[in-house]
Amino acid sequence: QLLAFDDGSSASSAQIKLGLKYEVKEKRFTVFVMQLSNYSALSLPANQNIYVRVVVLPCSETVRCLFRTHCALPQEPVELKEAFSLQVSSTALRQKTLRIDVCTTSKSGREHCLAGAQISLADEEYSEEWCTKWYNLLNCTYMPEMDGKQKETE
Amino acid sequence: QLLAFDDGSSASSAQIKLGLKYEVKEKRFTVFVMQLSNYSALSLPANQNIYVRVVVLPCSETVRCLFRTHCALPQEPVELKEAFSLQVSSTALRQKTLRIDVCTTSKSGREHCLAGAQISLADEEYSEEWCTKWYNLLNCTYMPEMDGKQKETE
Repeated sequence: QLLAFDDGSSASSAQIKLGLKYEVKEKRFTVFVMQLSNYSALSLPANQNIYVRVVVLPCSETVRCLFRTHCALPQEPVELKEAFSLQVSSTALRQKTLRIDVCTTSKSGREHCLAGAQISLADEEYSEEWCTKWYNLLNCTYMPEMDGKQKETE
Repeated sequence: QLLAFDDGSSASSAQIKLGLKYEVKEKRFTVFVMQLSNYSALSLPANQNIYVRVVVLPCSETVRCLFRTHCALPQEPVELKEAFSLQVSSTALRQKTLRIDVCTTSKSGREHCLAGAQISLADEEYSEEWCTKWYNLLNCTYMPEMDGKQKETE
């Protein structure tokens, strides 16, 4: 199944730069939320602050797996420079997925996620050194069918 | 911010094995959906067929970016062995995100996504050779807040 693809019309993505590190001796996994670029692809309302939500999943109810950066006004690039750590064995880490979302808070105080990246930690070899990469952020408007579980009304 | 993490209680993930390849001369990106393991982590109803949905995003409305494998009865492991290709320049590919979801169809014919992986193609160097990896599948029950766009009612 080979289909033609229209390059010219392809939209560009907002991107996030993350550093990931696993310290074996301390069993400590750290996510460093560094920078956001091309935020205009997020279709953000004017003068709306944004922040990044970091979740390491699955996690048990007794454990914190959810972190949020401070709020930042959108500018190019958005510097965040905030790190979050949790203790986890390397075996458990390989079962986990890191979910990174750029969010805003609506006037009613509700969290509203604009776009996100999802990083499987199954097959990665993180060393004591930072592994730094840019990740494309998938706009939530592209995920209309993702929420089948909640829309299912049978 | 360093918090203790309970290793013992960490759930295991279903995983999918994918091969990715980019052929420069043909400008052809190929996703090979190989195998699914530990499907019991998906909380699947008994005797329900599953299939894998592959989406390369963002894409324009005039272009096919959505593919589905055949249906398979869950067994350990689930062999799928189906490949999907699309033509895209390497520059455009780096703006894209690959979304892989394990789905079922409900009695009413509605697509129901159980779990998925999301792979940013921003920073990858795919060669003419297959790049084969296992990816953890994030259960959709862990994404209750993902769909803020649709639940927002202000």
